[in-house]
Amino acid sequence: MRKMFFLFILLLSFKGFSQDTSSAEDSLEIRKIYDMALLNGQAYDWLEHLSLKIGPRLSGSVNAQRAVEYTKKELEELGLEKVWLQPVMVPKWIRGTKEYAFIETAPGTSRNVNIAALGGSVSTPAMGTKAEVIEVQGIEDLEKYGEEQIKGKIIFFNRPMRADLINTFAAYGGCVDQRYKGAAEAVKYGAVGVIVRSLTHRLDDFPHTGSMTYEDLPVEKRIPSAAICTNDAEYLSSLLKLDKSVKLYMKINSEQLADVQSYNVIGEITGSEFPDEYIVVGGHLDSWDLGDGSHDDGAGVVQSMEVLRLFKEINYKPKRSIRVVLFMNEENGLRGGNKYAEEVKRKKENHIFALESDAGGFTPRGFSFDTGDAQFNQIESWKKLFEPYLIHQFHRNGSGADIIPLKNGSVVLAGLRPDSQRYFDHHHSDNDTFEAINKRELELGAATMASLIYLVDKYGFKTISTQQEPKM
Amino acid sequence: MRKMFFLFILLLSFKGFSQDTSSAEDSLEIRKIYDMALLNGQAYDWLEHLSLKIGPRLSGSVNAQRAVEYTKKELEELGLEKVWLQPVMVPKWIRGTKEYAFIETAPGTSRNVNIAALGGSVSTPAMGTKAEVIEVQGIEDLEKYGEEQIKGKIIFFNRPMRADLINTFAAYGGCVDQRYKGAAEAVKYGAVGVIVRSLTHRLDDFPHTGSMTYEDLPVEKRIPSAAICTNDAEYLSSLLKLDKSVKLYMKINSEQLADVQSYNVIGEITGSEFPDEYIVVGGHLDSWDLGDGSHDDGAGVVQSMEVLRLFKEINYKPKRSIRVVLFMNEENGLRGGNKYAEEVKRKKENHIFALESDAGGFTPRGFSFDTGDAQFNQIESWKKLFEPYLIHQFHRNGSGADIIPLKNGSVVLAGLRPDSQRYFDHHHSDNDTFEAINKRELELGAATMASLIYLVDKYGFKTISTQQEPKM
Repeated sequence: MRKMFFLFILLLSFKGFSQDTSSAEDSLEIRKIYDMALLNGQAYDWLEHLSLKIGPRLSGSVNAQRAVEYTKKELEELGLEKVWLQPVMVPKWIRGTKEYAFIETAPGTSRNVNIAALGGSVSTPAMGTKAEVIEVQGIEDLEKYGEEQIKGKIIFFNRPMRADLINTFAAYGGCVDQRYKGAAEAVKYGAVGVIVRSLTHRLDDFPHTGSMTYEDLPVEKRIPSAAICTNDAEYLSSLLKLDKSVKLYMKINSEQLADVQSYNVIGEITGSEFPDEYIVVGGHLDSWDLGDGSHDDGAGVVQSMEVLRLFKEINYKPKRSIRVVLFMNEENGLRGGNKYAEEVKRKKENHIFALESDAGGFTPRGFSFDTGDAQFNQIESWKKLFEPYLIHQFHRNGSGADIIPLKNGSVVLAGLRPDSQRYFDHHHSDNDTFEAINKRELELGAATMASLIYLVDKYGFKTISTQQEPKM
Repeated sequence: MRKMFFLFILLLSFKGFSQDTSSAEDSLEIRKIYDMALLNGQAYDWLEHLSLKIGPRLSGSVNAQRAVEYTKKELEELGLEKVWLQPVMVPKWIRGTKEYAFIETAPGTSRNVNIAALGGSVSTPAMGTKAEVIEVQGIEDLEKYGEEQIKGKIIFFNRPMRADLINTFAAYGGCVDQRYKGAAEAVKYGAVGVIVRSLTHRLDDFPHTGSMTYEDLPVEKRIPSAAICTNDAEYLSSLLKLDKSVKLYMKINSEQLADVQSYNVIGEITGSEFPDEYIVVGGHLDSWDLGDGSHDDGAGVVQSMEVLRLFKEINYKPKRSIRVVLFMNEENGLRGGNKYAEEVKRKKENHIFALESDAGGFTPRGFSFDTGDAQFNQIESWKKLFEPYLIHQFHRNGSGADIIPLKNGSVVLAGLRPDSQRYFDHHHSDNDTFEAINKRELELGAATMASLIYLVDKYGFKTISTQQEPKM
């Protein structure tokens, strides 16, 4: 009995051994990737240039164009098979002179508050907008007040991000409607302006901008809309509890100009066996005009570039064509992502996988996937290879805004998932700066992305349809 | 066949259900803990006081005493059964006037460099120490040079922390011998001073201090020993490649005074069922005198206090006695940890578990355990309860310096394991400040600690000896 038991164990071991042949090679290759990223990485230096030498890169700005030229030049130096610019027209919104705002508790008695126009907001009239304020906890509240109370007022959306959610992106998702369509909704009730509590857990003095929509509202009916920093949101809220008649003054000097020419920046290592199967890795080159866009999304840009550089450096020759795509205009239009997908469709390029890094340059924790069961199970079977690097999250919840337009029922989409706790401390504000980047965290992200792409390139995806799998 | 199959599944489900009864309750209780920590936490405010109102807390300093008094008062306000001070004599080393150092490339040509005396270093002579420098990559190199070359020189230990190790504590462990016993070794070859590359991955201008030993060397033979910031270490190293005759001047004004009275601060919730079984949660109240000790170990102090507060707030009444112990003098003597263990032994108190947080206030990733197989397996069976909070590391490698003296073959020791990437950016330097603390990360750490202690308190540990378990 004892002998048989040992024989059984022995057989199990052999089975393990034969299964692990490829996986041992993969372990070594992945170790090479991490070593190269950590010992001889380029991502941090690239980001230093993007952030400190160039700076914020709002679509249509001179800086965005400088970033296009810089990253193209850097990709050219990597010795890729192809590097090119993909033209795309982008919106050009400018903030103009910095906003000015104060709360007036009585005529002649006021306190300045920090606001930043939301991206796409119209300017206030030349003399600014001054009005009483109605604080609401969300769009649903507008109906409660109705046109009678709202008309001529400024609506103050003040629902904070939930602190109890572990994933801060979920907390963001639960509040961002106030910013994105608060103005479009408030205007229906006659509001003359909107301010939105900044989307961050922190209590500080940074207003956090971001995209918004007026839907199909004619230009002349649009109302100015701005983010207010959380400290001032708290102050205003406490004031309103005492006195409903306090007024907010705001002056916004923004302007929406005509669309301008810009570009996605693309580099490619052509596949050795399946050159017509494409794998995309990318981030977005544009940023908001506050801070320098280091986390959003300078980090994703340089990590994506680094993936291709790492393959070159460790002399890994992909079977499939690997493209780095630095998308333009994720923040206020998604024109770059849409354009890239359009061209893929037009040229009938077979994309099997796309991975975006657009959640900050923090310690990577894993990936989210938008795919079918079979592909996800296959990816999960690689999980063990990532354990030495403390990569443990493999879940099915989202990918990246720029790659969603590629979705066609077969391409696997994925997003890098870094630790999310600090992200909204920086997001879309003056606080998104290079000094908030940790070199090792950035490099670990790049290595993690490269490792997954290495595996997808090497093994491809099984084509088992999800429908054929038994469901319990 | 199909029916039997479903029956089988049904039975499995029931089994799952019955197994999960306690676990469902635990899930809810743990969720309560996290909610309380994230929505109504106290740790961050306590730390703000410790860091900004009190500041660095080197053993024997006025600040250390203020920290003792402050934390005692705060614990008293929690309504614990007992709060007391445990007297312990601690060493009192003072840095004196800030160090001054320069590299002289030629008489009259010099560049200042940033150094900080290691804790315990003797001062230089009143006129300072000036000598040629020999760079080595570790203690092993000393023999290669021998007394002939080393006599009268300053030894420059410059082996950097390895960047390829994912766990930065492993990289630290691979270098810290240079700092800890570099002087004791170099003096054997006639060196007149030691400088050590600061133990951080970053290239910056902060010298990182830390503990050192002269072993049993008589006071008059001791040589001054300092950390040099990494930027200046790189500069000096590059100079030495060109010219071996450059000299380093350093002036250190430190002094070792007589031991002084200090205290461990202890608070206790007395157990309702097993009051004689003790569970300890702690961090160390002292810090180095650079920065304000927010990560090392203000974070661990306030997280440990928070554990008891969370239990009070969610109205959890522990079966066992839960003690928070704020240890004095971890950094340069471990007197507090030793004293606490001494008293435990003297009073024959049965400690079943001790958990220390002393690895920074960053996003918690898990725990390390110093225990036998049975207890570790039991702990691992709780892993699933932590998954919603992204706690995934349960490994068997170390606990915490202050609790190691409790080790007796039965007590389970553990350490909180936060993300380690940023820790050594701050450790023991002017860069360890409150602004480097993220409120949510700190709170998540406290909730994670409280959740583990809740489980240990509720279930205790099985007493299966590790020897009885089959080994393959």
